[in-house]
Amino acid sequence: MVVTVDENLKLKVASDSKDILVKNLYLSCDPYMRLLMTNRSSEIFGPYTPGAPITGFGVGKVIDSRNPEFMEGDLVWGITGWEEYSLLKSSEGLFKIHHTDIPLSYYTGILGMPGLTAYGGFYEVCAPKKGEYVFVSAASGAVGQLVGQFAKLMGCYVVGSAGTRDKVELLKNKFGFDDAFNYKEEPDLNAALKRYFPEGIDIYFENVGGKMLDAVLLNMRVRGRIAVCGMISQYNCDQPEGVYNLMSIVYKRVRIEGFAVADYYPQYSKFLDFILPYIREGKIKYVEDIVEGLENGPTALIGLFNGRNVGKQVVLVASQ
Amino acid sequence: MVVTVDENLKLKVASDSKDILVKNLYLSCDPYMRLLMTNRSSEIFGPYTPGAPITGFGVGKVIDSRNPEFMEGDLVWGITGWEEYSLLKSSEGLFKIHHTDIPLSYYTGILGMPGLTAYGGFYEVCAPKKGEYVFVSAASGAVGQLVGQFAKLMGCYVVGSAGTRDKVELLKNKFGFDDAFNYKEEPDLNAALKRYFPEGIDIYFENVGGKMLDAVLLNMRVRGRIAVCGMISQYNCDQPEGVYNLMSIVYKRVRIEGFAVADYYPQYSKFLDFILPYIREGKIKYVEDIVEGLENGPTALIGLFNGRNVGKQVVLVASQ
Repeated sequence: MVVTVDENLKLKVASDSKDILVKNLYLSCDPYMRLLMTNRSSEIFGPYTPGAPITGFGVGKVIDSRNPEFMEGDLVWGITGWEEYSLLKSSEGLFKIHHTDIPLSYYTGILGMPGLTAYGGFYEVCAPKKGEYVFVSAASGAVGQLVGQFAKLMGCYVVGSAGTRDKVELLKNKFGFDDAFNYKEEPDLNAALKRYFPEGIDIYFENVGGKMLDAVLLNMRVRGRIAVCGMISQYNCDQPEGVYNLMSIVYKRVRIEGFAVADYYPQYSKFLDFILPYIREGKIKYVEDIVEGLENGPTALIGLFNGRNVGKQVVLVASQ
Repeated sequence: MVVTVDENLKLKVASDSKDILVKNLYLSCDPYMRLLMTNRSSEIFGPYTPGAPITGFGVGKVIDSRNPEFMEGDLVWGITGWEEYSLLKSSEGLFKIHHTDIPLSYYTGILGMPGLTAYGGFYEVCAPKKGEYVFVSAASGAVGQLVGQFAKLMGCYVVGSAGTRDKVELLKNKFGFDDAFNYKEEPDLNAALKRYFPEGIDIYFENVGGKMLDAVLLNMRVRGRIAVCGMISQYNCDQPEGVYNLMSIVYKRVRIEGFAVADYYPQYSKFLDFILPYIREGKIKYVEDIVEGLENGPTALIGLFNGRNVGKQVVLVASQ
């Protein structure tokens, strides 16, 4: 037995372990999770084990711990299981939550993995400069909405794409994008990008891949950068779509670069120092889409792939 | 009249100009020239003008000059015309040749644009480290043969691909590649790369594009780099081939980066200091394929695209 119930009916971790027992409060729905259901998963997160609960980022409360860094009552975020309670064998990538004036669910998004992804991906991989032209796809998603706002803070011109008119309105009116369009209403993505970026694109924050990437390549400026965060349009394809315009890399000296959030874990506290004031002052907006109940998690997760969610998709499992 | 003949029957540049008149000695056949015959040329070299001589890199001798930096008798390399004499309006990208103990033709290759391309592309874009696994396509070409040798100097493991058995032998026996293969004899490029790189590829020096790039993507290691020098397999395609395995950028955090030799012009003298000793000591080998006569230039240039040349393709126009 690795978890026992003591005389007060409290769950206890086995005393000879280093385990941490958490009660899961919020679970995060993130596109990368789809990849862990294939044979070819990322190097960062191993594939899921059939028959075991899937894992993902979440926010939890420590119920008991034999790890000296964590104690009962601590609030944490990091990789946990899609279940009510998770016994965590490692504290790697588990962060203690110190700022509780912010909604706890934010630690699945703006203050968690997607936030750090947007931060590292934009500031480090994109290497933005004031006045540059920035395009963000899946722009109302957990990462995209932040990248667009970071780009505005940097003094860039920012256009986002999304899949519904409501999301386009959100981008323009809530997140302050300079412009936005519904890619589903654009039969010719190349023509759409030429309309929104007559001068071309310096930075593309890539969340979708496929046809959008192909159209973007035709519109990149010299020394443009494409930070590849994900390619969600490809995750449910049996065969990936072809991309035809890679010669732009030669013509325009484009850099395309993949990255992973784990590379930026050491910068997490610096990231918090950066973003917390903006959140508290209302200068960075954040939209999340919370469903209640673990039983509604699978539908919420699947919904990411047809754009059902508006903003960051979160599953509320339990209150504290 | 911009060029006149004086009383001694010598060609003279008009005295109110800044022009440089050169006698062309060697002309260089380079794959990028094909791109200048399309509507979509590079940002570095504008498209060719129908009816005018095509331009390209070459070695020449200054016959007369009104540019104070160049004088009669100077040997130079840089952009010139495919003609016997060229009147150069600008000295931008025109380099004076100071080391004449090396064959002059080398200034179209190892000591010219392809050499500087290999140098900048490998040392700067690929950011190589000792012990890394390096793959070079079109490896016996002007740039590829040098990249492979630079990689060996760096202590990397280097495999090259080429299109004939003779070229494969050249790679292994003359240029010192650890291994090499004939891509035309490999029905499954992915399987071939897995055989030559069981641990995967850290650095791919991309000269060909298309199917080879697609196979390489499946074999990249985490944080691998692909320096895109060119994609010669695509230059004669009406429609570019699709590339399907770009998800590797996400899985492996791959960086793909285009570059242009002009970015490295400021480093040319540093490059010479680096490479001249290796050439003089025979530690870097160089193979060129010289055809005689401007009239044989077009065939030589076209030959690049079916691999007719063995080594750097040069056209000898005139002796000094």
